[in-house]
Amino acid sequence: MITIDFKKGGGLIPVIIQDGTTKEVLMLGYMNRESWEKTLELKKAAFWSRSRRKLWVKGETSGHFQIIREIYLDCDGDALLLQVEQVGGAACHTGFRSCFHHRYEKGTWAPTGEKVFDPKEVYRP
Amino acid sequence: MITIDFKKGGGLIPVIIQDGTTKEVLMLGYMNRESWEKTLELKKAAFWSRSRRKLWVKGETSGHFQIIREIYLDCDGDALLLQVEQVGGAACHTGFRSCFHHRYEKGTWAPTGEKVFDPKEVYRP
Repeated sequence: MITIDFKKGGGLIPVIIQDGTTKEVLMLGYMNRESWEKTLELKKAAFWSRSRRKLWVKGETSGHFQIIREIYLDCDGDALLLQVEQVGGAACHTGFRSCFHHRYEKGTWAPTGEKVFDPKEVYRP
Repeated sequence: MITIDFKKGGGLIPVIIQDGTTKEVLMLGYMNRESWEKTLELKKAAFWSRSRRKLWVKGETSGHFQIIREIYLDCDGDALLLQVEQVGGAACHTGFRSCFHHRYEKGTWAPTGEKVFDPKEVYRP
């Protein structure tokens, strides 16, 4: 049977997060084995933060958890796709629904997409 | 202005391929700068194959090209999302529409999804 191949990416596997209802792609994160097991335990997406070098439950600060609906593994076992319910309606720390809010247009990256919250309100010190 | 950050992933950036019409996530690949430029030039998805260590235009063997419709960059500049028209109706070399054709069910990965072509017919020696 196929299993998750954590070795190929040096202990990390890329994880695509997709809105389970609208099918919009919300973000891409990384999981190590510990965050994968935490995801299964909580039924909420947990990642490995490459910049902060720590396990990170998405929404632990903002309350914008990603509740797991379905999980898919690709043909090589080296990428995951999670369909989620995005609490708060936005995945991006900038307040946009999706982290993919720059569209390529004639050689530049044009802002696009919908801003759902004000990060200053959500991430108060 | 935001730009693609190839450095973070050692010269490679993960690229999510999504069907532009159905919004189904088809696969995840990697691009280096050369394959990114090839993608823009051809208006078809080109990747860097980590296993074969070479530039690879998706569909060059099967004819199942991925014609670019929209390109998005994420908030950190370290992941791309391509919405495409999938020629032949299937992205996976196994003949399935999507590479993500194993669904997590009670601790195992159950085959799911739709097989569109027979790989023996498409990848003849």
